[in-house]
Amino acid sequence: MEIARPYLLFLGDVPDALAAKTAIGIVDWRKDWCIGQVRLEGCAADTGLPDMSVPEGAAAGARTFIIGAVNAGGRLPDHWVASVVEALDAGMDVASGLHVRLRDIPAIRDAAERNGRQLHDVRHSTMSFDTGKGSKRPGKRILAVGTDCSVGKKYTALAMDKAMNERGYNSSFCATGQTGVFISGRGVSLDAVIADFISGAAEWLSPATQEDHWQIIEGQGSLFHPSFAGVTLGLLHGSQPDGFIVCHEPTRTRMRGVETPLPTIQQVIDLTIQCGRLTNPDIRCVGIAVNTAALGDSEALAYLAKIGEQHGLPATDPVRYGMDVFVDKVSAEFGAP
Amino acid sequence: MEIARPYLLFLGDVPDALAAKTAIGIVDWRKDWCIGQVRLEGCAADTGLPDMSVPEGAAAGARTFIIGAVNAGGRLPDHWVASVVEALDAGMDVASGLHVRLRDIPAIRDAAERNGRQLHDVRHSTMSFDTGKGSKRPGKRILAVGTDCSVGKKYTALAMDKAMNERGYNSSFCATGQTGVFISGRGVSLDAVIADFISGAAEWLSPATQEDHWQIIEGQGSLFHPSFAGVTLGLLHGSQPDGFIVCHEPTRTRMRGVETPLPTIQQVIDLTIQCGRLTNPDIRCVGIAVNTAALGDSEALAYLAKIGEQHGLPATDPVRYGMDVFVDKVSAEFGAP
Repeated sequence: MEIARPYLLFLGDVPDALAAKTAIGIVDWRKDWCIGQVRLEGCAADTGLPDMSVPEGAAAGARTFIIGAVNAGGRLPDHWVASVVEALDAGMDVASGLHVRLRDIPAIRDAAERNGRQLHDVRHSTMSFDTGKGSKRPGKRILAVGTDCSVGKKYTALAMDKAMNERGYNSSFCATGQTGVFISGRGVSLDAVIADFISGAAEWLSPATQEDHWQIIEGQGSLFHPSFAGVTLGLLHGSQPDGFIVCHEPTRTRMRGVETPLPTIQQVIDLTIQCGRLTNPDIRCVGIAVNTAALGDSEALAYLAKIGEQHGLPATDPVRYGMDVFVDKVSAEFGAP
Repeated sequence: MEIARPYLLFLGDVPDALAAKTAIGIVDWRKDWCIGQVRLEGCAADTGLPDMSVPEGAAAGARTFIIGAVNAGGRLPDHWVASVVEALDAGMDVASGLHVRLRDIPAIRDAAERNGRQLHDVRHSTMSFDTGKGSKRPGKRILAVGTDCSVGKKYTALAMDKAMNERGYNSSFCATGQTGVFISGRGVSLDAVIADFISGAAEWLSPATQEDHWQIIEGQGSLFHPSFAGVTLGLLHGSQPDGFIVCHEPTRTRMRGVETPLPTIQQVIDLTIQCGRLTNPDIRCVGIAVNTAALGDSEALAYLAKIGEQHGLPATDPVRYGMDVFVDKVSAEFGAP
């Protein structure tokens, strides 16, 4: 799935920024891929991009209309359909990360057929994958893993890709979730793949590349999350990382959405190495990324120093203190670019 | 997915018994659910059931026409379609474990609609599951796990269910693969579920039951298979077994279909306990089931004695030497029925 650029971002009339976090995430990381935003009357979210109508976006060269906002329930409200049809009639493809499939809405399916345009339902894979092979392939890979879901794995992978590029490494970001797919322009929502093909899809996502190229792979779930650990393990085996970063949120005590207690960082390091060795015997942890948003500055720094020392690894908050310590570690372990 | 009984088994015109292994498996375990077999001219497989035409099967009360044979490629040959349509017109549902979907064949879909009958594509889940919750639920569970794929996990689970019933336990078999679904009349092909719902589907398969009821759950894949370990881990978390049986084939050196070496039995025991504790802290191994078909009798007995002693666990070949040692172990660990 390759999504044509540039993008025109549709925000609908959502009541707050949280509901437009997909669009905001795209602008955070790939502002130069975006031409503008389309907002309906009453929209309270704003990406900071120029407001434009659908025809104005088309005239400016937009090739894909991205539904960058989500309604309660993941549905597409009836009053958003006209904008989607307008975009198709203006010659754009349409991409959505909603639960509902664009092609299941007759007016949208008809408009896509009429105009010969593509509908990208990134949450619903229509691709066929091979089963995973487990063979070592050329290139270097870093995977973000977590003590839980929603602890900053996507942000960490994107920030690591950016930091490594800035330090002269040849790196690229590999998306495994919806927003990540829009940010990379390619990828698959790994949790939407048929179970037999999880590791095969992960192998497709991070294919053989030059030996000095680093693929920085967005993580999913946690090996310790009873709902999603299967996805996490298939991703670990398929991405055969050389290095991994453990992402952690220190105020959380239970896994997201269930009663299971949070594992320790050390448990995550140990099980990731134990399982990851199946497809990469040299797997090692290169750092601990902590979301310290709930802590004051001195508290955050003290916490990072403490867990860094405990585990003998660099620890940082990617948002607050940058990624340099992780890139230093990669350089020490695997060599300078 | 509940499949109405009794069954009429369709063998087509397959050239050998291997191609009819689904039908033969059903007859091995649930002969009393089967009314007869339908064979086309040239069929070289035989389940031993009475041969009959589709109308004869319908007259004898058959409620589901099971496609119990597989053609090369998992397709449904054109010259089998007429028999399927005939079964639908005679008032039967139709069930298939083929890769192709019955409902994607227009003549079959039309006949099902015309007659108001169900089409069960057990390899393609159309069910919605919740994500796994991970909470401990009433009842007792045993899961078959393996050092590899295709090492006898289905056979072991079915034999354990039978042996426990014979020894007075209240037990039932829970299917996670196609043939198993036909044998239990219920279930889902776990490898066909969307990745996000693996453990949720496993929870649905082995729901809360009476405290003294044992669910014996068919395993899938291996935690050490780089293609399928995600399915295996989701199944382990979702089925939260009290006991597990490790299935092993002693002559194999590499995992099926890949270059990965086989793990040791001890590695499988250790990782299964380590990961299984997430949803059942009391998980333990209750035995080792070995496919000794490649060994002579004295060699097989010596091998079983050796690995039994090495691991401090009962070891048997379910086909050759029965399941009594495993039921003894369950009785010692969890109490008599």
